[in-house]
Amino acid sequence: MLSLSKLKYLKSLHLQKFRDEYQEFVVEGPKMVAELLKSDFKVTGIYALKTWDSGQRGIPVSIQNLTEIISPAELVRISNLKTPNEVLATAKIPERIIEESMYDDLVLMLSQISDPGNLGTIIRIADWFGLKNIICSPDSVEVFNPKVVQASMGSLFRVKVHYADLKEVLSGINSNIPVFGAYLEGRNIYREILPQKGIIIIGNESRGIDDLLETFVTKKLFIPSFSGGAESLNASVATAIICSEFRRNTN
Amino acid sequence: MLSLSKLKYLKSLHLQKFRDEYQEFVVEGPKMVAELLKSDFKVTGIYALKTWDSGQRGIPVSIQNLTEIISPAELVRISNLKTPNEVLATAKIPERIIEESMYDDLVLMLSQISDPGNLGTIIRIADWFGLKNIICSPDSVEVFNPKVVQASMGSLFRVKVHYADLKEVLSGINSNIPVFGAYLEGRNIYREILPQKGIIIIGNESRGIDDLLETFVTKKLFIPSFSGGAESLNASVATAIICSEFRRNTN
Repeated sequence: MLSLSKLKYLKSLHLQKFRDEYQEFVVEGPKMVAELLKSDFKVTGIYALKTWDSGQRGIPVSIQNLTEIISPAELVRISNLKTPNEVLATAKIPERIIEESMYDDLVLMLSQISDPGNLGTIIRIADWFGLKNIICSPDSVEVFNPKVVQASMGSLFRVKVHYADLKEVLSGINSNIPVFGAYLEGRNIYREILPQKGIIIIGNESRGIDDLLETFVTKKLFIPSFSGGAESLNASVATAIICSEFRRNTN
Repeated sequence: MLSLSKLKYLKSLHLQKFRDEYQEFVVEGPKMVAELLKSDFKVTGIYALKTWDSGQRGIPVSIQNLTEIISPAELVRISNLKTPNEVLATAKIPERIIEESMYDDLVLMLSQISDPGNLGTIIRIADWFGLKNIICSPDSVEVFNPKVVQASMGSLFRVKVHYADLKEVLSGINSNIPVFGAYLEGRNIYREILPQKGIIIIGNESRGIDDLLETFVTKKLFIPSFSGGAESLNASVATAIICSEFRRNTN
């Protein structure tokens, strides 16, 4: 049975304040926890129903020792999901360091992404297209928010998400690193030859890319619309089309 | 002031049962209502705060006559939004007829799409890429669900969304109409020459395309992944990449 202090602790991790304080976050459901166990994240606790199947053959002793069997009623109390799902785990928030070598590949830069579902979906898109790093502005939604964690479908464990002042990062990079951004007056993305290195800035859905960043953009791109009606694309949809265009000739 | 019967009626339209019965649906917010007023949908009522700006210069008398000024407290009572936004309108659900001529252009076919946000986003993608018709399986989420309406950002007024038994539709079409579907064993979409007519089937996110439809697919396509990790793309993200690939050479 869960102690009252453990119960309180697990519930507190639903809030950013306590995630920041304890540097831990929550992962829920057998599929996501299986992804967590395969990752290099440090697992600190597993709270599972008797019926839980870890999805790993021969679960390591280190993990077994972390596992506490709980009742369905206890799971309901600690879960953040509408339909709690067999297992909940906690893990250490990893340290992320922005390194110059990141830019030898494509890096996504997100300016003020506020919707958790959008950020989760963008992490999944980055993973699909083999982008290993995302840099978010500090005012973006926090990546260990339970909604982001669940929407990322495990891609969170493979794509490194950093937070930094984007203007500062862009000021500090080598001037030969191309910086792309989507602008209405940009060049038709379908007709450009796109490199396999550099930074792709994705703007906030309603406000676009922060004006302060525009001066750093070396190439403005545009996804043409094929109808007179729709005014914009959802941020994650735009990210998908842009990543697909950057990668399509490499496969 | 709103009569009690009107208030009850407007609230009832939040439920599919009553939308089906009265053949009306609700549109909220100044931006969406402005799109509604520009469309060929038949508006049946407008409930607006004094401060509402219709977004139209010289609002037609027919629309003026439909407008009832309400109080902020009344708007809260009839609204389906967390933050009610100045105006709520009702409109007739239009009749949709599937015609053979639709297939002279690209048509999306959605097999069991259940998430309202996904359907709304897909309608917006279709609009962006100039696809005028979507056919949903009858077990898909209803298009006049308030969450779908709001997520479509007005694209709902330009893209016709039909509901039909997909197997029946596919059985009845001319055999020279190509039918595309995304399958793991499909051909790399980035290397195919894609026509500007035909049907693109999008599957349910967790189950993929209904097995009963596979026999009708004339060309299986595949969006290659560029990493070992991510197992799948969100249904709306996959739709965006597929539509982008079909249209990219025409612009």
